[in-house]
Amino acid sequence: MTNSDYASAGVDIEAGNRAVELMKAAVKSTYGPEVLGGIGSFGGLFDASALKGMDAPVLVASTDGVGTKVKLAAEAGRYRSVGHDIVNHCINDILVQGAHPLFFLDYFATSKLTPEIVAEVVTGIAEACRESGCALIGGETAEMPGVYAPGEFDIAGTIVGVLDRGKMLPRPNIAPGDVLIGLRSSGPHTNGYSLIRKIFVGVPLDTVFPELGVSLADALLAPHRSYLNALSTVLGQRSTVKALAHLTGGGFLENIPRILPDGVDALVRLGSWPVPPLFELIRSRGEIAVEEMHRVFNMGIGMVVVVTKEDVEKVQQAIPEETFVIGELVEGEGKVILT
Amino acid sequence: MTNSDYASAGVDIEAGNRAVELMKAAVKSTYGPEVLGGIGSFGGLFDASALKGMDAPVLVASTDGVGTKVKLAAEAGRYRSVGHDIVNHCINDILVQGAHPLFFLDYFATSKLTPEIVAEVVTGIAEACRESGCALIGGETAEMPGVYAPGEFDIAGTIVGVLDRGKMLPRPNIAPGDVLIGLRSSGPHTNGYSLIRKIFVGVPLDTVFPELGVSLADALLAPHRSYLNALSTVLGQRSTVKALAHLTGGGFLENIPRILPDGVDALVRLGSWPVPPLFELIRSRGEIAVEEMHRVFNMGIGMVVVVTKEDVEKVQQAIPEETFVIGELVEGEGKVILT
Repeated sequence: MTNSDYASAGVDIEAGNRAVELMKAAVKSTYGPEVLGGIGSFGGLFDASALKGMDAPVLVASTDGVGTKVKLAAEAGRYRSVGHDIVNHCINDILVQGAHPLFFLDYFATSKLTPEIVAEVVTGIAEACRESGCALIGGETAEMPGVYAPGEFDIAGTIVGVLDRGKMLPRPNIAPGDVLIGLRSSGPHTNGYSLIRKIFVGVPLDTVFPELGVSLADALLAPHRSYLNALSTVLGQRSTVKALAHLTGGGFLENIPRILPDGVDALVRLGSWPVPPLFELIRSRGEIAVEEMHRVFNMGIGMVVVVTKEDVEKVQQAIPEETFVIGELVEGEGKVILT
Repeated sequence: MTNSDYASAGVDIEAGNRAVELMKAAVKSTYGPEVLGGIGSFGGLFDASALKGMDAPVLVASTDGVGTKVKLAAEAGRYRSVGHDIVNHCINDILVQGAHPLFFLDYFATSKLTPEIVAEVVTGIAEACRESGCALIGGETAEMPGVYAPGEFDIAGTIVGVLDRGKMLPRPNIAPGDVLIGLRSSGPHTNGYSLIRKIFVGVPLDTVFPELGVSLADALLAPHRSYLNALSTVLGQRSTVKALAHLTGGGFLENIPRILPDGVDALVRLGSWPVPPLFELIRSRGEIAVEEMHRVFNMGIGMVVVVTKEDVEKVQQAIPEETFVIGELVEGEGKVILT
């Protein structure tokens, strides 16, 4: 072997540097005064002086990916929306514990680095961060020939947020009689995409199914929404929210039990919210049982709020969008009953 | 299509759950009293009350991967060492800013989830976290058929640490005349593995080159070491350390300039430290220029400490291992001169 260098081994350091140039402005737009130092230092720096003013600050952190939705994004050549997906997924995951986001870091890896693609993904990440007042203080791009299939990429993200310990969710007083309020999802979010891709295999992404009214790409790549702004009022100073459940991997059937205390079941009334046509299309094309659909997908409800019966109306009024009473808690053994 | 379910689409939720069971004890062993809640909650919770006692707490965060070293690990069927790699890489990256670690989160993704492999990787992560007093408070495992090449996996990690703002590195007083002290690396750490794999293509991993004295797998998969414990004394209360440089991707030539102020060059004297035989083997087999070797690899020095000439002896004595004076700073334009 002669003349080995890093580029001939499939790693292009210049491409990495060019990607950083392309995304710099978007990343900087997420910086508030808490962000110290600039892009390119070893680690991101976040001034945590504000935590000194809290009674008992607790940092809350979560790492996630967006599953094989990245594969669909690569097929469609659309990269910005998965940036929103990863950020909003993470924001929702810490929101259910009562935390608001401080900062975010991303990881992007692919078989062959295309600076414009990385820049699109990171611009999407930065947009979603900015919408939620979250600083994008770090990230890594990696070119890994042979690990990723040709043309494929993956992204992961980590969020760090904070809460005051006295306001941590779920609260211990969840009890039979409490009511479940559902907020709409914007699509399958980031779950069930391996199954979705199997069901729509061979169907061009620009196909417009009449019941959807938009292209398959538009329907399937709709970004995972964040519930931070919709719930900020009800999670405010004198919050009566007892718990939140983010319906991600495992859908209705596996996420709601995560907040149920011993001896309590959740009774979910099918038909109490409109199931978006995409889920019915998936169900019929795939001949999937209704129970299995609820184990994989959010079925149109992305976040569930648990409150006492007395607070239902007040909480629904304080959420600035249409919400649905989808069920209630009853005595039981920690499972979800679809009825 | 009939009878679709999530398992037949290539995603095995049960395998994910079994992996969690296998790694539970290792993860829990990293928990100090600051970790609130248990495994399986939505986000990891870390009591940050200690930050209230600091003058000006700054959170430092970094995300990283281990590059195509994962491919070598997969080939060798050794998974625990890459867990050490990812944690120690991250610890070093925030150490150079003067921070000590608080907590870590990992991301593991693969084409097909084998619970025993995930558990090995995460056990390695937990071991490295425990050695550095860092809590492993979160993680995500993802099965992504079609995104990863068959049998391949990738890992990424995120660390969050803290420093008091007055002790942030690098300090602004770095100047010509300052001396560079090098600490040994434990191997190529996590850099240059695409090139390494190209150079050793077709060579069985159990080959023992006489100059190495151990198998190629042992030499190439030696875990990235952490410098936290070696440097904890010199970074203590009345530290005279002006800067640290972690020699990762970009090797000598691109990492040292990250801490150089305007008008300063780093003069690095080749021969002032023993270059481990593995690097000479790589250079000769690959016919790689010496300059390129220093742009890709750490060449046996994984961390560089910058101090004034007067402090050299004291600092060397306070580091509990052999160190090397590898060069000094001179007037210049921000680059590294190999001499």
